[in-house]
Amino acid sequence: MVRIGMDVGGTGIQIGVVSEEGAILVKDSVVARPDLPFSEQIAQMAACAKSVLERSGHTMDELASVGAGVPGVADPRTGVIPRCVNLRWENVPFREEMGRHFPGKPICIDNDATVAGLAESVAGISAGSSSSVFITLGTGVGGGIVLNGKVWSGAHGIGSEIGHMTLELDGVPCTCGNRGCLERYCSATAIIRMAREQLPGYPTSRINELCGGDPAKINAKIVFDAAREGDPLGSKIFRRYVSYLAQAINSLTAVLDPEIFVLGGGVSKAGDFLLDALRAETPRYALYKDAFPLPRIELATLGTDAGIIGAAMLD
Amino acid sequence: MVRIGMDVGGTGIQIGVVSEEGAILVKDSVVARPDLPFSEQIAQMAACAKSVLERSGHTMDELASVGAGVPGVADPRTGVIPRCVNLRWENVPFREEMGRHFPGKPICIDNDATVAGLAESVAGISAGSSSSVFITLGTGVGGGIVLNGKVWSGAHGIGSEIGHMTLELDGVPCTCGNRGCLERYCSATAIIRMAREQLPGYPTSRINELCGGDPAKINAKIVFDAAREGDPLGSKIFRRYVSYLAQAINSLTAVLDPEIFVLGGGVSKAGDFLLDALRAETPRYALYKDAFPLPRIELATLGTDAGIIGAAMLD
Repeated sequence: MVRIGMDVGGTGIQIGVVSEEGAILVKDSVVARPDLPFSEQIAQMAACAKSVLERSGHTMDELASVGAGVPGVADPRTGVIPRCVNLRWENVPFREEMGRHFPGKPICIDNDATVAGLAESVAGISAGSSSSVFITLGTGVGGGIVLNGKVWSGAHGIGSEIGHMTLELDGVPCTCGNRGCLERYCSATAIIRMAREQLPGYPTSRINELCGGDPAKINAKIVFDAAREGDPLGSKIFRRYVSYLAQAINSLTAVLDPEIFVLGGGVSKAGDFLLDALRAETPRYALYKDAFPLPRIELATLGTDAGIIGAAMLD
Repeated sequence: MVRIGMDVGGTGIQIGVVSEEGAILVKDSVVARPDLPFSEQIAQMAACAKSVLERSGHTMDELASVGAGVPGVADPRTGVIPRCVNLRWENVPFREEMGRHFPGKPICIDNDATVAGLAESVAGISAGSSSSVFITLGTGVGGGIVLNGKVWSGAHGIGSEIGHMTLELDGVPCTCGNRGCLERYCSATAIIRMAREQLPGYPTSRINELCGGDPAKINAKIVFDAAREGDPLGSKIFRRYVSYLAQAINSLTAVLDPEIFVLGGGVSKAGDFLLDALRAETPRYALYKDAFPLPRIELATLGTDAGIIGAAMLD
């Protein structure tokens, strides 16, 4: 048996046939078309899925299920996508609509970070663990929670939105309308904000050179590259960021105490530079320092394939 | 079949026989004796358990399991209690030791807040729900997490320590060594701290009268009673407390999205005065205000029996 996984991204939708072992056999993509009615977009996705299935040498009878990972909110129980900004979808009955193209097959959906976390726990760095928390460190911060080997998405499909835990009462305003959300401190956006705020006080910072004197061009990589070179402002922001992330991991440990945390998303591309610093910082905030082992922290290993693999594994 | 539940408290250990339906048939207690070796304390608990079993009219053959809820840390996998301050226990092999008195019976342990949460989800206000988070608002803040009808205690038994999530970066110092932990803002201790800090600025406050002019005598009930009477300082602290608790519930919703939150512990005795205010405040911090129903918030209903009932249900 094989499964279809669909990874809905900002510009394209990646679609692949995935083996029982979690390997992608064939993949292809369709362009994201927010201008189309959802039924037509889903018809294009289904056509692509049938094409990759055929090219993989498998028949419809050998297809166990179809799954999709969606940026935004997806209700795994009802199969409805209340909101997907990329595709301009509101309350799209995904399961029902995709089901027309795959009669009798289970159709599953979940949040994209959840899907990536599931993929890592099946075929990636957290494979073999019973519980894991996947953290995507990108423009925002997303989460994927796997407990007893199964995805936990909450009673209404809005669990694992770890980016919106409060990390600072009355803190930095968040896009969600609240203040002090975790993602205001642990995202790439947070790194950029800290650099822009503090750059005027550090006119000779390497960050100024790396962004060509234009603060609008600062990104997380520039700040971390400056930190690697020992730049005072880059190093200061990097240390602050690592402290925030360690406290976020402590908060999640206090609630969930998973076997392993897995870091994905753009910021995690800093690799061992980030991982080593985070592993050194996290014990400072551990609750039971002596009595219990510290949680493992690792980098995601599946990269962009995680979206397809995890979506296929949702059933 | 019946089960034994043991609720380890500060001064006494409550022990009861519990029916399949979650009703206590007979209960009794033994005095907590931190001066005794753990094997003798456990022998006294076992003797009391055998006595209540006999008085309930049931035989050892009808006993399905023995469970205990422990304040502090209890590792449900190994059956070891790494730390129980009340009994001055360190790394006590509870399962092994209690097992000597009940050969062949499953011996289960978990944290007391977890146990109370399980009890409510089996025989209390959250009965029938698939997922719930129990929050004890006492000297500290404890948590009990039930997901898919089962207790989630984490990979190392230190999950659901929700009182030690970070709610404020670099915030109020906590007994655990970190800063800004949730329990520094949501416990009875937090209410007392806020009152003592601010009382000098409110010399005519009703709180001053209720504590007889002695700030050392302030407790959470005094502050809430003053708030009920419309006292300006009492009302201010009450509103602040409710706002903190609403943000804590929002954080937990962002991670776990349970069907229901259940409030227990001393502060929850404020009843509807607290519950109504909290239900009014929580929507302000809800992440997806329009797209999803708000989490239910209720008061615990089992009171002090929850400890025995939940401990009996651990197996």
